[in-house]
Amino acid sequence: MGSDDAYLLTASEALAKIRAGGMTVEGYVRSLLRRIDVRDVDVGAWAYIDKDYILQQARALDKVPMSKRGPLHGMPIAIKDVIYTKDMPTAHNSPIYKDDFPKLDAASVILLRHAGALFLGKTTTAEFAASYTGPASTRNPHNPARTPGGSSSGSGAAVGDFQAPVALGTQTGGSTIRPGSFNGVYSIKPTWNAVSREGLKISSLMLDTIGIFARGVDDLDLVADAFGLQDDEASGFTGIKGARFALCKTVVWPMAGEGTRHAIARAVDILRAHGAEVEEVDLPREFDDLPRWHNMVLQTEGETFFLPEHRVAKEKLSPQLVGYVDRKAGYDRRAQLKALDGIAALRPKIDDIAGRYTAILTPSVIDEAPEGLEFTGDSAFCVSWSALHTPVVNVPGFQGHTGMPIGVSLVAPRYRDRHLLKVAKEVGKLFEAEGGWKRSV
Amino acid sequence: MGSDDAYLLTASEALAKIRAGGMTVEGYVRSLLRRIDVRDVDVGAWAYIDKDYILQQARALDKVPMSKRGPLHGMPIAIKDVIYTKDMPTAHNSPIYKDDFPKLDAASVILLRHAGALFLGKTTTAEFAASYTGPASTRNPHNPARTPGGSSSGSGAAVGDFQAPVALGTQTGGSTIRPGSFNGVYSIKPTWNAVSREGLKISSLMLDTIGIFARGVDDLDLVADAFGLQDDEASGFTGIKGARFALCKTVVWPMAGEGTRHAIARAVDILRAHGAEVEEVDLPREFDDLPRWHNMVLQTEGETFFLPEHRVAKEKLSPQLVGYVDRKAGYDRRAQLKALDGIAALRPKIDDIAGRYTAILTPSVIDEAPEGLEFTGDSAFCVSWSALHTPVVNVPGFQGHTGMPIGVSLVAPRYRDRHLLKVAKEVGKLFEAEGGWKRSV
Repeated sequence: MGSDDAYLLTASEALAKIRAGGMTVEGYVRSLLRRIDVRDVDVGAWAYIDKDYILQQARALDKVPMSKRGPLHGMPIAIKDVIYTKDMPTAHNSPIYKDDFPKLDAASVILLRHAGALFLGKTTTAEFAASYTGPASTRNPHNPARTPGGSSSGSGAAVGDFQAPVALGTQTGGSTIRPGSFNGVYSIKPTWNAVSREGLKISSLMLDTIGIFARGVDDLDLVADAFGLQDDEASGFTGIKGARFALCKTVVWPMAGEGTRHAIARAVDILRAHGAEVEEVDLPREFDDLPRWHNMVLQTEGETFFLPEHRVAKEKLSPQLVGYVDRKAGYDRRAQLKALDGIAALRPKIDDIAGRYTAILTPSVIDEAPEGLEFTGDSAFCVSWSALHTPVVNVPGFQGHTGMPIGVSLVAPRYRDRHLLKVAKEVGKLFEAEGGWKRSV
Repeated sequence: MGSDDAYLLTASEALAKIRAGGMTVEGYVRSLLRRIDVRDVDVGAWAYIDKDYILQQARALDKVPMSKRGPLHGMPIAIKDVIYTKDMPTAHNSPIYKDDFPKLDAASVILLRHAGALFLGKTTTAEFAASYTGPASTRNPHNPARTPGGSSSGSGAAVGDFQAPVALGTQTGGSTIRPGSFNGVYSIKPTWNAVSREGLKISSLMLDTIGIFARGVDDLDLVADAFGLQDDEASGFTGIKGARFALCKTVVWPMAGEGTRHAIARAVDILRAHGAEVEEVDLPREFDDLPRWHNMVLQTEGETFFLPEHRVAKEKLSPQLVGYVDRKAGYDRRAQLKALDGIAALRPKIDDIAGRYTAILTPSVIDEAPEGLEFTGDSAFCVSWSALHTPVVNVPGFQGHTGMPIGVSLVAPRYRDRHLLKVAKEVGKLFEAEGGWKRSV
């Protein structure tokens, strides 16, 4: 494979090639830019992209002597447009912030830049990563009539479409796991607060998490390294054979469509066929409150965090977010505290339950990406884990009845992110090989 | 009083005068600028101040027709230099961010600007509002050989010295309540997360809170209005007579010096003399873990939030913050979760206890401001309330053995901020009249 096809590589493969002198950073990004040229007219993954600036970064990186190169030297990454970048505008898909350009790098961006990453551009997002309606300009690369999911729409689509090897997104409800599933890529929502959220505009302080998208777990690991993600102890995971998985269908299982039911059944069969135990585990009844509590936190924190926009330019804020500030749902501060305290009490309990298994297996989505571009899909299977602050990885490999990708989630206790990635890598090999969905370009 | 002495007014008094046509905004800030000219050479409260820009804002505000003026029209406010302002640099008292100028208004600043406030400048802070050593350039206005406290050093000193009527600070440990006490002013640390922290650089996500300084409770109320702070229910407080206070000396009481012991004893006497009940309440033993847990959260979150600076410019970071990232205290993520979950379980309990009283009375500081400028004083009496997320108001009125001001704290359940301010106003009248310390210019 020459540089022409370099867009097909994972970041880990590309970086190895650059390190070995087999490719320049410029050659690599020129391949990606050609892919973007050909494809993005149909996908629309970018809120901001400046090709000259990309090439300028690439040439500067190529001039850095080998001995001074960081671990991510030349890794192109796309950044969701709710995360501040000092060299690109950040508009949150809100007319209030159209062309806004704070000269500030988010903490995540500082870490990536310091490690040698190259910033491809800003990817489309639902308004403030909070609105249920997506950027209608972004289409699922596997079927342009379907949503790429949200709110990290552009990040999921760009990685799924080989326009970027890696992207940052965020998750408050299901905004990293859902587009991971819909676009057929790996995505991780790390433990809440394990990656600095500095410079990510707040939607809900207790829920927002920086997320990562890639087409392989090695690439998620690369970014996890740059973010300093580390577990207290090394993972004891040695392979699927003898591993123990808990299948948690959760209280929202009745919402699961055929695609997800099939994916979960296949996942269980594959794991068992390779020597793992899979035990169906019903979470205690007290966990059934989580979806409602998540919504209460989302809306009541939204009241606080969207108040400035509501005061200054209410008419430019979507009715959903205006409704948070206006307390349309009727939740007062007492309700907020009840939800916050209730969720907090469940966190050590889920750590304890999840800690008994190699990982929890649970749905990522209710089904394959739905038709249409406005509604980004249901986050029912994600919100409880978002509230619980556990790490979650979407693993692709399955498909729905129209052939669209479907992933399933693996979950571990808080701050067991690296263990979870190690498990996801082996699980992913099996699901991608035997799950039924094949990645195509 | 003409405009010449306008710097002596509280913001509420000044705004009433401006509304009545008795003073222009320009006249008001010229008075403050003269005060700053005369005094700041000794106090050093400002990290950034641009007199021409202040006058420019004032003249623009004076041109706004009466019918279009916001509720804070012409209110001069000082902003701690860890809070982003699009029209002034933000340097966090860190050489890493010297002259840094992100074009971004924090949410708190957006709300103030929209309401018509005028920004006097940025006030000095301990490094990232996190270091125990203060900006040695800032002196206590009541005695230049003593610290103004920290980390909101400049905000406390500027308000205590009549250089600004109102200031924003922050609190992670005791950074709003302690400088409130040391400088003889009112200060409120609202309920955590009740005011958007967007645009306040993170030191500890679970602890950082925007704080407000003023020389009267009416002024705290003005800013609380702009911030949209509201309780679920109106306060039932009708006056000191018949009110019930819980005196919580807390587990750190043995650290209290003579000044604080005297202040608390006087406070109790005054409240009882005016018809209030004061009952000494020992918090359950499980609350004794709070100071240690607070420190564990501070250090482990510091590891995450100072990682970017540690990676990029470790040599420019203070040893204390380097130590957080290097885990000098040896706290791992398990310790962090134990502390977080332990604190979370106590929050509904303190709400329940505090809810049985008009307010909790508790020390603000161990004693009057200590000598020297490097160490900003001990936050022992503040950290538990910071961890518990309750609102706290420092009420001045007492003095230490050298005549320096000492305040005491009032505490209420979470999201009872407006009730607490109502109580603090009446309590403050008594403490200021009978506590023994007299404000002088």
